[in-house]
Formats: sequence, structure tokens, C-alpha cells
Amino acid sequence: MRGVLDVPEALVPVQGLIADALVRVESVFDEHLRAELPPVDQLCAHVERYRGKMLRPILVLLGAISAAPEAPELFASGREDELVTDELIRLAAVCEMVHMATLVHDDVLDDAELRRRGATLNHLRGNEAAVILGDYLIAGAYHLCATIGRLDLSERIGRVSMDLCAGELLQLHHRGDLSLDEPTYFEIVRRKTGTLIGVSCELGASLVNAPPETASALYQTGLRLGVAFQIRDDLLDLTGDEQRVGKSVRKDLEKGKLTLPLVHHLGACEPISRGRSLELIEGGAGGVSEADERELLGRLTETGSVTYTEATARALVNEAQQQIATLPPTPARALLDALAQAVVDRAL
Amino acid sequence: MRGVLDVPEALVPVQGLIADALVRVESVFDEHLRAELPPVDQLCAHVERYRGKMLRPILVLLGAISAAPEAPELFASGREDELVTDELIRLAAVCEMVHMATLVHDDVLDDAELRRRGATLNHLRGNEAAVILGDYLIAGAYHLCATIGRLDLSERIGRVSMDLCAGELLQLHHRGDLSLDEPTYFEIVRRKTGTLIGVSCELGASLVNAPPETASALYQTGLRLGVAFQIRDDLLDLTGDEQRVGKSVRKDLEKGKLTLPLVHHLGACEPISRGRSLELIEGGAGGVSEADERELLGRLTETGSVTYTEATARALVNEAQQQIATLPPTPARALLDALAQAVVDRAL
Repeated sequence: MRGVLDVPEALVPVQGLIADALVRVESVFDEHLRAELPPVDQLCAHVERYRGKMLRPILVLLGAISAAPEAPELFASGREDELVTDELIRLAAVCEMVHMATLVHDDVLDDAELRRRGATLNHLRGNEAAVILGDYLIAGAYHLCATIGRLDLSERIGRVSMDLCAGELLQLHHRGDLSLDEPTYFEIVRRKTGTLIGVSCELGASLVNAPPETASALYQTGLRLGVAFQIRDDLLDLTGDEQRVGKSVRKDLEKGKLTLPLVHHLGACEPISRGRSLELIEGGAGGVSEADERELLGRLTETGSVTYTEATARALVNEAQQQIATLPPTPARALLDALAQAVVDRAL
Repeated sequence: MRGVLDVPEALVPVQGLIADALVRVESVFDEHLRAELPPVDQLCAHVERYRGKMLRPILVLLGAISAAPEAPELFASGREDELVTDELIRLAAVCEMVHMATLVHDDVLDDAELRRRGATLNHLRGNEAAVILGDYLIAGAYHLCATIGRLDLSERIGRVSMDLCAGELLQLHHRGDLSLDEPTYFEIVRRKTGTLIGVSCELGASLVNAPPETASALYQTGLRLGVAFQIRDDLLDLTGDEQRVGKSVRKDLEKGKLTLPLVHHLGACEPISRGRSLELIEGGAGGVSEADERELLGRLTETGSVTYTEATARALVNEAQQQIATLPPTPARALLDALAQAVVDRAL
């Protein structure tokens, strides 16, 4: 997406429609945060540099465009740009703003120094500025949402933000908990990442007054994509390379966060071998040596935990694609399907 | 208030009405945050212990009760409890939740250990839990606000939260700035404290569909009370005693925050004496010795800065009382006036 996704010829126009819409989303995002107070504007300018894949705004847009009752007709007559209203652009900016607020606060919690190949705000300007700026972003999101003129959207955005924080608190509570089980891991990930991505898909559909079953199918799609995305992210933190990933890695081990590959590994390995794995994981809290890293990855591979994790993400994406298949057949639906596939292929 | 305020006989019934309403506000506050996740609920239970004067909910209630077009008639016929609707209770809880979120994050920013005579959340459970819990509270506030069913309230609450954060960012930007001037000090205080208290008064009136000029008079009332309140708080941080105040003191000096008495003092003192004052203020960043504290207070008294600060707060309260006098004459108006007076008398 944003030119990154390699789509078939037939999807080029709808991809262009989304790309144009994203430019508008960015302007609304930036303008809404402008405060005419130089110190505030300088910090907001820094956040603009964090801008990444814009997954949530893309999903808001695709949710609306693929679910609008008049979409098939508008696509057939080449008038699909009428689907991209000012309200839709604002809603897309709202979801990105909520996400950006969590990124800024997450980096404070994680003591992260690197985000999207640049220094994090907390690293550059201190934790205090980062905490307040995160608050400013979330306030901006709610304010912008209220200007759309639909109370149901404001309620849903408030609700999903509560869920998101509850997920983070649950994760914090289980920090250093080496007996974390899969259901709890999924509960955390569903809340902290899944629900906002689900709601992004769903609210696009709600805004265009799609039938409730379509909005619900889109929520289920986003929820699964979100969880798959987080699982992939957790795997990258463990196996990825900082330069390639573009943000701090090995943070999960350092912070005592057990992720799916580790949870699976500890459940699957022989009792006799488990002690050494626990030792390596616990040792990670003080920073992981390269030798320990290699040994741990070797152990994860032995129990098939990396493969298991990848398969879990793939299964979730498959479920998402089954939901997508229930939507009306438009180019927007096809693009949504391609996007889901990209999560599996790591092309996104 | 809450039985603390010594009111004339005639105001006892309306004070009772507010006291009963506050019990309902507390229940809504607590119930709305319940997550059915034990780690989340435990943290929320801690926040319930922070509960203080409930100034913002009281002002929401008094704003509504004193501005409702039907209030004089209902008071005359002893049916004033009909003014306290479920929506009003929820709105009062919303304003308290926004405030509580800022307290939790402020304590993180200030490294404060004491709040309302108990250990702060950050001190007890770490900065991370405090940052996320603050986010959870603010999300809860927006969600609860959306359930009231009035978009104008959601928009106003979003807007005032942005203002509040902008004030905090401005304050952070001027940390350690020994040339801070009065207009900037007032800009900071107006945004970070004044606007939410103003909006608390105003939204109560908006909810009951009071005429716009009444809602506006109430906003102006709250804004001035809020600024006066903050000035008094800043003075207490400088001159107060930790045991009596019930929260950490001398934090402003330690954090390089110049407050009104200091701003006035530096502007008013003789050039020859200014250097020593700057030395004492800058020295405060490393913790203030008792001798330095005494010397600084002596210098503030010499330039009349404590008197000036108190007079400034008193003048703001007078302005607020002039606004209050424009409201319809009901017992609620009289109680609002008594509350304003209590800010001056430090009875609140």
C-alpha cells in the first residue's frame, strides 16, 4: 500500500483512490493538532515523522468503500471517488491519532530509542513531553471524532480505547510471568492491538450506513488481521534485525514480555531442557548476548515454535479472508483481500 | 462542601441535594471503569482513593441546577431533586474522570510520592502502570460522555482536554525559564487548570439547555475560579507544609516551575538583590534546604509577592462572583457564590 503493495492491474485505480485519500488524511491529522503555540507545534511535527504504513486509516477507507450499499453501482460507473467524503477522511485520521497516541506512550513504557528509523520522542525530548503529547493526541482524536457528527462513532472510539488500555495493563501485570499461557497471551493481544484494527474496519462501514452484518464481518476481519499483525511483530522483535525492522528490537525479552513463540516453546519443550530455556529468557532482562540469542533461537526452532507462530498468524489471516469473501464483490474488497495476504507475506 | 463548607441555614437543603448527587457520581465513576479484569480493577480501586474535593462534579451539578430555566419554579415547589438527572450525574463523573487522569499523569511527571495523604500510583506501582491507567481514565471519560447522547458535550470535552495538554506542554517548555513573565504564566494556568473548571460549570448549563449567555457566564465563572484555585495551589506549594497540604510540596521549585509569587518577586526586587534570589530559586532544583526556604520566603514577603499573589487570586474570585450575580436568584446560585468565597478563604 502507498505504492508498496504489488497489486494486479485491475486494482491500480482503487489503490490510487486510497493513496489520494491518505494525503487528505495526513492534512486533516496535522491541521487538527495545530495549536498556534510553537512548543506544541514543534512536538506535533516530530510525531508526523513517525507516520508509517497508515494501516488503520487504510482499513477505515477500505471498510467504508467496500461496504457502502451504493459502492457496486459507483464502481461500475467510475464514480467511486464520491465514496471518499470529508467525514470518512476525518474518521480515518481519528483512528490513526488513537494509534499514534499509543505508540508515543508505548515508547515511553518500553524505553525505546528508535521508531520508524528515527529517534523516539521520549529519547529526544524526555518522557514528560512524550506522556503529555500522547495525551494531546488522544484528546485530538476524540475531539475530531465528535466533529464528524455521529455519537455512535464517539462511543465506539471511547470504548475501544478503554479496551486497548486494559490490554496494556494486563500485559504489564504479566510482565516477567514465565507461566503465561496462550489464552492470556491472546486476550492481551486481542485487546491491545486487535480491537482498534477491528474497529477501524467496522467504523468505516458504520459511517456509510452499511448493514450491521457487513459492519460486523469487517470488525471480525480487522480483529483477526490485527492479532496476526501483532504476532508477526512479536516474532520480528525476537528474530528480526534492528536495521531491517526500523525500530528497537529484543525489547520484549528485556521487558520480561513473553510472546507467542516463547509461550509455545516453554509448553512444548522437554522438562529436562526447560530449565536452560527459562534461564536464557530470564537472562534477557539484562540485555541478550549474541551467543544467548543464537542458542534461544535454536531452541525455538527445535520445538517448532517459530513455525507454529507463523502458522497461527497465517490461520488468522485465512479466517479474515473468509470474512472478506462475504462482502459485496468490488475492487475495494479485492484490495482488502490483497492487504490481508500481505500480512502473511510480510509485504506490508 | 461535602459537609465541609459552613453554609447558612437556607442553603442546607441545596447542599444536601449536591451531597446526595455526589454519592451517585462516585458510583457511576467506579462502575464505568470496572473491567472484569482483576489487574485493571485493582489499579482503579487505587484511583478511587485519590478522590478529593470533587470540585469539578460539584460545579457541573451547580452549573446545571442554577441555570436550568425551570429551576426557580422547582425550587419554589420543593421539587428541585428533579433537576438531578442520570445524564447530569454522568456528565459530572466525566469531568472528574478527565481531572483524575491528569492527576495520575501529573504525578508521573512530577515524580510525586504523596497525593491526598496516600502514596501516589506511580510511587506504588511504577510509572508504566500510572501512564496506562491515566490513559484508561481518559478513555473512560470520553466513552461515558458519548453515552449521554449529546455530541456538543463530547466535542467540548475533547477540545478542553486538548487545551489542558497544550497548557502542560507550554509549562514543560518553560521549565527552568527564569525569565517567565506574567502573561505566559497566566496562559499556562488558564489552559491547564482554568478551562476544565470553566467547562465543568458551562456544560452543566448546556445539558439543561440554559440560554447561551448563562452558559457563557458560567464558563467565565469557572475559568476565573480555576485560575484562582491554581494560584492558591502554587502558593501552597511554596509556603505550605506537606502534612497540612496532604501532598508533596516544593515540587515546583524542584522541577524548575516558576509560579506567580516568584515571577512577581523577580520582577519587583532591586537589581542588586535579584542575583541572590535567582541563586536560591535555581538551587531549589536540587531540593531546598530549610535555611534557603526561610530566606526565599523572607525575600518574597519583602517585595510583597505573597500579598500580591493572594490579592490576584482574590480579584479573580471577585470577578467570578460578579458573573454569578447575573444568574437567576436560586439557592444554587447562593451556594455557588459561597463556594467561590471558599476559594479565597481557603475553606475548600
